[in-house]
Amino acid sequence: MDIQKKQILIGHGSGGKLSQELFQNLFSPHFSNPFLDETHDGAIFEINGVRLAMSTDSYVVNPVFFPGGNIGDLAVNGTVNDVSMCGAKPLYLSCGFILEEGFSMAELDAIVKSMRLAADKAGVYLVTGDTKVVEKGKVDKVYINTSGIGVIEKDITISPKNAVNGDVIIINGNIADHGIAIMSKREGLDFTTDIQSDSAALNHMIAAVLDVSENIHVLRDPTRGGLSATLNEIAEASQVGIYLQETCLPIHEQVKTASALLGLDPLYIANEGKSIIIVPEADAEKILAVMQSFEEGKHSVIIGNIQEKNSGKVILETELGTKRIIDMPSAEQLPRIC
Amino acid sequence: MDIQKKQILIGHGSGGKLSQELFQNLFSPHFSNPFLDETHDGAIFEINGVRLAMSTDSYVVNPVFFPGGNIGDLAVNGTVNDVSMCGAKPLYLSCGFILEEGFSMAELDAIVKSMRLAADKAGVYLVTGDTKVVEKGKVDKVYINTSGIGVIEKDITISPKNAVNGDVIIINGNIADHGIAIMSKREGLDFTTDIQSDSAALNHMIAAVLDVSENIHVLRDPTRGGLSATLNEIAEASQVGIYLQETCLPIHEQVKTASALLGLDPLYIANEGKSIIIVPEADAEKILAVMQSFEEGKHSVIIGNIQEKNSGKVILETELGTKRIIDMPSAEQLPRIC
Repeated sequence: MDIQKKQILIGHGSGGKLSQELFQNLFSPHFSNPFLDETHDGAIFEINGVRLAMSTDSYVVNPVFFPGGNIGDLAVNGTVNDVSMCGAKPLYLSCGFILEEGFSMAELDAIVKSMRLAADKAGVYLVTGDTKVVEKGKVDKVYINTSGIGVIEKDITISPKNAVNGDVIIINGNIADHGIAIMSKREGLDFTTDIQSDSAALNHMIAAVLDVSENIHVLRDPTRGGLSATLNEIAEASQVGIYLQETCLPIHEQVKTASALLGLDPLYIANEGKSIIIVPEADAEKILAVMQSFEEGKHSVIIGNIQEKNSGKVILETELGTKRIIDMPSAEQLPRIC
Repeated sequence: MDIQKKQILIGHGSGGKLSQELFQNLFSPHFSNPFLDETHDGAIFEINGVRLAMSTDSYVVNPVFFPGGNIGDLAVNGTVNDVSMCGAKPLYLSCGFILEEGFSMAELDAIVKSMRLAADKAGVYLVTGDTKVVEKGKVDKVYINTSGIGVIEKDITISPKNAVNGDVIIINGNIADHGIAIMSKREGLDFTTDIQSDSAALNHMIAAVLDVSENIHVLRDPTRGGLSATLNEIAEASQVGIYLQETCLPIHEQVKTASALLGLDPLYIANEGKSIIIVPEADAEKILAVMQSFEEGKHSVIIGNIQEKNSGKVILETELGTKRIIDMPSAEQLPRIC
């Protein structure tokens, strides 16, 4: 990649191959340090003997209000989840607003209200913030950054590098709901489907999972780029083969229909209330039982396992018994999905 | 303020009266909690016995490159300073980029490089990040959020509420350089002035100040809204009168000229490498000596003091011996200054 002549493309924000390239060729050479190089959902560090996790995300979702949520609760849930995926208990969040001149104060009020409700539900505090306003047309209504800090209280190391042969992959329910909810609204299909975004804070469920098993290897929320981007990252980081059973993948019928209509593959569509949990098979049953006791985990299932062969790859075993490789998404199927 | 009918104005991002109104009438009613209600530059909290400070800022400065810096080092220095103003040692920063489709990768590379250099100089790590890309015209080139976490190692409480009668006000050098550097560039005056932004990390100097005195009452960096916004906030929070000596205010001659040309008052113009230190008079001399030993503090001076009368107000005692009230800026003199 010749940086000097190139321009930023929409796909550089996809969470797929172009995002990886941008990270590897531009950000990483400058920013490289032991914390960042972990390429986790957040950073893990110790301050005076206390292990902490920190994560950040900017939200640019379009539209700002969508079935099942808005940019505000999405921003709270998203960062709560990213901190949780480090094995941490999220505690404190910051939020930075960039507002467009002329933006409706009533809409901002609704967004802020839903952020507080989401924070209360997750049991975190929004402790500090910042508000910038730019001229009309220099931002699209409102973008929100949330950053979060949490404490790692158990002696565990959760990392995308830790998947090993024999592990199983659990997910806490239907995939692709968030992306389809957004796209339905954007494309005016929201009268033909009642799919809601799955936006939800997963920290309480994850804490219960960590209480019942000390053997969690990987936690990851499959947001941008969907299950395929997340699993490809893990397959590469852990140097393992990831095998998915197509018949086990939980997908809502309406999502299947809408995906077909929009020419999209649910495996590449963003989720905002889902977590992948990779764990030795022996622990799977008790973990599933715990997850299923939570509203956000009641449809939890095993969707595949980790094998030695096909290291670095994600393989889908189809209903017909054939196998196909699920590639990392290359560019951007769904811009501004979160 | 009737939220239901109003729209966001540029002035709501000014750091002045409109910003205060937005915070008090919209953010605070929803977000209110003991951490946020401190209205500090950051939040202070304890995790498992370790006292921490967290701060966040989104940077939307226009132009992205300006005399003395760019949006990247500004974003690092700004958050390092906000964490420092809580009396904390900044340690770890997150950064979130929102990029415009078509933005030059060479410019992004230069920005990212300068962030690393600024982080190294401040002695902090950029540990986690996020990159979003939006369509051309939905953001102006690049906006950056940085959030920072630091540790408070001393048994001190720095707060805008702590200024008391008899304290003096110290500043570490010339005011208004940042705002004038930006405006000169924006207005095409940069051929007639060589004023550079004062963008700098102040954490090393502040740490040395905290080492030499246990009596620091207030630390604050006068950014958006300039010295006037910062001092008005302190006067109100501490319920004291703040008296400034016009003859003591350090202002570069070129800044005076440019301000006059642009119709601006240096007291209302942003700084990005300045700190107000409010401290009992007895400690002032040793603090000044320490500050002056740092490059970023070599022009440190006392600019005024705290009195009981005129509580909540900032008073300028002019060269001619007259007094005038320095109001909180109402709207936005200089949009997108940081």
